[in-house]
Amino acid sequence: MKETRYIGKPARRVDGRAKVTGQAKFSDDVILPRTRYAKVLHSRYAHAKITKLDVSKAKELPGVAAVFTAKDIPNNDKYFRKGTMGDTWVLAEEYVRYIGDAVAFVVADDEETAEKALSLIEAEYEPLPPVVNLREAKKAELLARADREGNVSMPLEVSRGDVEADFAKADVILSDRYVFPSLSQLHLEPNSVTAVYEGGKLTVYCASQVWFHTREDIAAVVGLPEKDIILRPMTIGGAFGARNDQPLPIIASLLAVLTKSTVKMTNTRLEEFVAARPSLQMDIDITVAADKEGHLLSKKTWLLSSHGIHASDNDAVTAIACLRLDNNYKFNSVYVDGTGLYLNHTPTAAYRGFGNPQMHWAFESMLDELAEKLGMDPTEIRMLNYHEGGEVGIHGFIYNNCGIKECMRRAKEIVNWDEKKKHKVPGKGIGCASLIHCSGSRAGKPEFSGTSAWARLESSGAVTILAGECEMGQGIVNVCALIAGEELGVDPLSVKVIMGDTEMCPFSTGTNGSKLTSNLGNAVLFACRDLKKQLCDALREQCGYGPVEMRDGGIYYENNGEFVMSLEQAAYEACCKFSGRPFMGLGRFNPPSELGDRTGYGNLAPSYVFGVQMAEVTVHEDGSFTVDRMVSVHDIGRVIDIRNATGQVYGGVMQAFGAATTESLDLNKEGVYQANTILEYKAPTLLDMPHIDVGFVETHDQYGPYGAKAIAEPPIIAMAPAIGNAIYDAVGVRVHEAPITPQRLREAILEKKKRAAAGEEA
Amino acid sequence: MKETRYIGKPARRVDGRAKVTGQAKFSDDVILPRTRYAKVLHSRYAHAKITKLDVSKAKELPGVAAVFTAKDIPNNDKYFRKGTMGDTWVLAEEYVRYIGDAVAFVVADDEETAEKALSLIEAEYEPLPPVVNLREAKKAELLARADREGNVSMPLEVSRGDVEADFAKADVILSDRYVFPSLSQLHLEPNSVTAVYEGGKLTVYCASQVWFHTREDIAAVVGLPEKDIILRPMTIGGAFGARNDQPLPIIASLLAVLTKSTVKMTNTRLEEFVAARPSLQMDIDITVAADKEGHLLSKKTWLLSSHGIHASDNDAVTAIACLRLDNNYKFNSVYVDGTGLYLNHTPTAAYRGFGNPQMHWAFESMLDELAEKLGMDPTEIRMLNYHEGGEVGIHGFIYNNCGIKECMRRAKEIVNWDEKKKHKVPGKGIGCASLIHCSGSRAGKPEFSGTSAWARLESSGAVTILAGECEMGQGIVNVCALIAGEELGVDPLSVKVIMGDTEMCPFSTGTNGSKLTSNLGNAVLFACRDLKKQLCDALREQCGYGPVEMRDGGIYYENNGEFVMSLEQAAYEACCKFSGRPFMGLGRFNPPSELGDRTGYGNLAPSYVFGVQMAEVTVHEDGSFTVDRMVSVHDIGRVIDIRNATGQVYGGVMQAFGAATTESLDLNKEGVYQANTILEYKAPTLLDMPHIDVGFVETHDQYGPYGAKAIAEPPIIAMAPAIGNAIYDAVGVRVHEAPITPQRLREAILEKKKRAAAGEEA
Repeated sequence: MKETRYIGKPARRVDGRAKVTGQAKFSDDVILPRTRYAKVLHSRYAHAKITKLDVSKAKELPGVAAVFTAKDIPNNDKYFRKGTMGDTWVLAEEYVRYIGDAVAFVVADDEETAEKALSLIEAEYEPLPPVVNLREAKKAELLARADREGNVSMPLEVSRGDVEADFAKADVILSDRYVFPSLSQLHLEPNSVTAVYEGGKLTVYCASQVWFHTREDIAAVVGLPEKDIILRPMTIGGAFGARNDQPLPIIASLLAVLTKSTVKMTNTRLEEFVAARPSLQMDIDITVAADKEGHLLSKKTWLLSSHGIHASDNDAVTAIACLRLDNNYKFNSVYVDGTGLYLNHTPTAAYRGFGNPQMHWAFESMLDELAEKLGMDPTEIRMLNYHEGGEVGIHGFIYNNCGIKECMRRAKEIVNWDEKKKHKVPGKGIGCASLIHCSGSRAGKPEFSGTSAWARLESSGAVTILAGECEMGQGIVNVCALIAGEELGVDPLSVKVIMGDTEMCPFSTGTNGSKLTSNLGNAVLFACRDLKKQLCDALREQCGYGPVEMRDGGIYYENNGEFVMSLEQAAYEACCKFSGRPFMGLGRFNPPSELGDRTGYGNLAPSYVFGVQMAEVTVHEDGSFTVDRMVSVHDIGRVIDIRNATGQVYGGVMQAFGAATTESLDLNKEGVYQANTILEYKAPTLLDMPHIDVGFVETHDQYGPYGAKAIAEPPIIAMAPAIGNAIYDAVGVRVHEAPITPQRLREAILEKKKRAAAGEEA
Repeated sequence: MKETRYIGKPARRVDGRAKVTGQAKFSDDVILPRTRYAKVLHSRYAHAKITKLDVSKAKELPGVAAVFTAKDIPNNDKYFRKGTMGDTWVLAEEYVRYIGDAVAFVVADDEETAEKALSLIEAEYEPLPPVVNLREAKKAELLARADREGNVSMPLEVSRGDVEADFAKADVILSDRYVFPSLSQLHLEPNSVTAVYEGGKLTVYCASQVWFHTREDIAAVVGLPEKDIILRPMTIGGAFGARNDQPLPIIASLLAVLTKSTVKMTNTRLEEFVAARPSLQMDIDITVAADKEGHLLSKKTWLLSSHGIHASDNDAVTAIACLRLDNNYKFNSVYVDGTGLYLNHTPTAAYRGFGNPQMHWAFESMLDELAEKLGMDPTEIRMLNYHEGGEVGIHGFIYNNCGIKECMRRAKEIVNWDEKKKHKVPGKGIGCASLIHCSGSRAGKPEFSGTSAWARLESSGAVTILAGECEMGQGIVNVCALIAGEELGVDPLSVKVIMGDTEMCPFSTGTNGSKLTSNLGNAVLFACRDLKKQLCDALREQCGYGPVEMRDGGIYYENNGEFVMSLEQAAYEACCKFSGRPFMGLGRFNPPSELGDRTGYGNLAPSYVFGVQMAEVTVHEDGSFTVDRMVSVHDIGRVIDIRNATGQVYGGVMQAFGAATTESLDLNKEGVYQANTILEYKAPTLLDMPHIDVGFVETHDQYGPYGAKAIAEPPIIAMAPAIGNAIYDAVGVRVHEAPITPQRLREAILEKKKRAAAGEEA
């Protein structure tokens, strides 16, 4: 590996100081003059006919600027993503279809008046039976939406190879069912938006992961051309996929335009639960076929996926759940039948891992079942079936490198796997699971799927990186600053990174799919190289200094290495030679990837990341258990920012731990979420966290900057099945539906005992 | 002239709507959270020793964050322009030296507390005699500043040709003395600044004409590198030269940094008078030599100029007053002895015309005296001595075109000059004066004196022009939008123009010297052409459309003229082909001009503008008079924006009318301005304005965009002497000191009568 000054070294975060001192401005910190406040009247029924909706008293309240119901909204039924979605509404008209469905908007001079006006709206409903269960939705005896026959939002059926032939020649066939819950992404910052409509132009201060998509969505609903809309990114308090498709920026923008004013809206925590975009619950049946040596031959999967009341990016999540994991093992053939279903709850959407955690929960658990049946060690069956660099996954992934076997070896070392397996301690268990994900994953655009960046040097010597992507807390600003610092020879902390401002920054397809380190990292790298070349050329030619190079924050003669001048001085002289214009290095990266075909076949990303996760547990007779240690080892190519990468692993593992043990958004029969507060939702806190060991296997990726690959999503993907497998290892019992609560585990232990007793009796 | 779609046509102002609807944000409209307010304790003495300064009670007032006196200010004596000025102080230390001199700063939680704290500061002074008169300052019996021997701020002595020989062969020699007052630029928006200091970075919301100079000034005083300072331009309510060098952005920035907070300061109207940067009073003695045909042979000038208490751009103003006008006539030789003097009043600085109105008042009046002595018509003596295109002025101006003779012909036609001269009506008079000024005048930087602009097309189709210059109300945004509209074939009202943001825009030397239409106009023109080429190249090559052209807001095939797609569609497709990056057309213009040598000789601008101004008056026996009509005819090359150009003439003529008739910043013996409110200052209102006729002589300038030249400053330059000459024409009496108040005119009439009576008696 090339010697580096900043890359891979422990670095301070360029946005760290502002965040820890409270100076960072989040969306709710936006305070503008003459702001009006808007509130939403949400449905309290999961499915009902609206029998009365009288807003006259609310309208008469002093301080109320406007009250809107469905009939007041132009294009009420043309909501969201122009041309791709559009199967929903701004305000419910005849029916409400989920708890949280918007029935009316109030715009008032202050929040208190808006709240009061909400209470003055007279709404009456005739309840209808809601569809809240995947298996029932599939039966389609009741419809979640009268306009959607069969409740099917997205069907996907894919077959590769000769599945029946492979099953026919299998030595072992195993079937099981796994359920993974819907989860809240639980970004701690609730959504807040301030939309300013003045002189025919709209400026929106908000959070988003997909600035230019959000602009497109707003344009479609408010009826302005995109060029008259500016999004000004605020500091974002987490996103995790939830901010791919948030309604609030669109609603606030619409109300600003309709009332020709500045409108601010901030979600309550309750709204963040009921009117949010949580992850997809999946109910998965798998039958797997292997030969007696443990080679995976084939697999059949039937997957039901909760899309909630309308399409979002839940289609893509379901598709990835159906296909991605298969690429991690050398199957001969696979078959999958996936169905995204409409249900009477809030629409679901992306969550870190994008469908991958759900399928990994199912299949990585089953792999342990299979290993047991074959008398193999769980690590052994995986090592046997992993791909190597240079191979191609069954759905078309091309691996230019693959460090998964090394990840497994490293993880085993860390937990001392073989020793522990040899010397079993009652009630103690270890489990493993492995994972695959994309690095630089392809956006669903045929036009392009890369990104671009500018590195700007202005006359003062200030270096700025401009990109249309999103810093949502994941630390991409640091990656950009480190790359710029490395290439330009300046302190990364002095580099300003401006991201996502739709007026200042390049267009981007948005920040998801673990694609920034690879795609944006390259764009920044190329931009800095271009900038350096431009500046040195100008100094040599226009300014007459002869051959010079830029390093260590200064300019040096190429021939004798002598110092010529500071970067500030060089910037001033060179800018003046070009009549004041800053130097703008341009970098762009369009990764070698392709859109999948209609069956999802294709090399969706330039590179892929791999990892192995392990857990050690202690399980008690009553079903209570502790996770004693978690180990997460990842092949992410070259590590750019070691602290940040490690932080990403901690965060992802913590979220996976929550999903495995405590978190879920369960609905009751009436379609009511059983957890509507953080307290009830029971996400783990730092105090609940077991020890985590993080390991990185540094491969060199031929497409990544400095050989780097992604780390954003992987740590969340396979820890839940690793914990499940460890519990099985401890007590020989498996809970098929996450989270593995003590109740569920206790029931399974009792059930096992009952079956054992029955067996003894038999 | 090339056929145009927008250039030269009546156009709506792109910033008009926001201004008339009140949506434009001026500096005082900036409202930020956690803002502190600062106030200045000003000296009430023009010259005094500080004997006591006790701020302890002010500091103890609840709500006061800090109180600063000179000893608390780092670099207190290193104020303003790094390397060029630096002869002043932030806060007065031992002495106060003008009324308005800053003695202490108070920073408090609100304005009322800050005011109250000011009143609690105990300051005592021992008054010293102030120097407030130019002739007395020149004698230097008293010093305005103990550290400046002789009160001389700037001496300039220049001689060209053989002055004594020319005087020796003259048929007529004439001497006289003229005085032109110090004037307030009277921009209606008082200065207001909000400076935000967070995380080691400073962001300043303010008005300035010279964004990057102001940044440099702030950096020098607050001790931050320029790269850590961002200036965010607000809408500006007029500048007229006054905002080249305003202390408020520097003071507010310093207090923000010292208190590590957000500090807002807004001047009162009183502060806008006493602590402002008004124009230079000049006291001018001229002796002129001519032959009997009226050819100007030579001229000697002794000029005293009030620089106030320290250097600013008053040095440059005095230099231009000394030299510029001489270039307008074919002198054989000239001599000038100019002295800028320190006086105990606020420092003086630029005002529209930059010293030219002062000298034009003197010499254009004397030319009428000379014509009378030679029995010539005032227009005849001027026509005889004007230059033609292709000639070179006596101080080195090179005229690539010159329409002044045509201006004179046009103006004469409009007022029916010859008829009116033939048929004199008692008490009625007509007068004329002519003028010269720079177009694209050179900034005092050897590095460069041009400017650059970007034309950006982003994926939404939005067209943005970015430039580091300043829109201060003069309408340059419209010139940029019209040029962009013309070149790109889009509606100028759809073009967004962003100017002066030091983070987003190119570096510039600042907006003064009537240079934007020429310099920035060219930069925008070239930027748009570059953008068009880049886009069409991308559509042809990367997008595969073959040869296309951009016009009428769309893309058309070059061969058959058929429509291909809208600009929005083209922008999206082409941006995607370049991984999302917007197209950035770069334009830069470095005009063919040179810095003057040490004697001020040189071709300071690529082009020069000329004009003839005329006035018709009715004078009554008691000294009261009315100006019945003003005519202003200008050679400004091609007219870009006819409404805006006409508006500039109205405004400039109105200001000249004020200077000629009512306005002046007179000091009493104690150094107190006699007018400290708009009411007392007596600037004319619209209701006071005579009819104005505006004429444009359209020459084609080889360096200007579409052949255009400047119009910002010329209309103010020669109207005062035209009015003076008209009054002389009416009643044979001349007031040598502007403004020509009824009192002064009455005194002159009585004096003339007395002399006439004495003559009769003799």
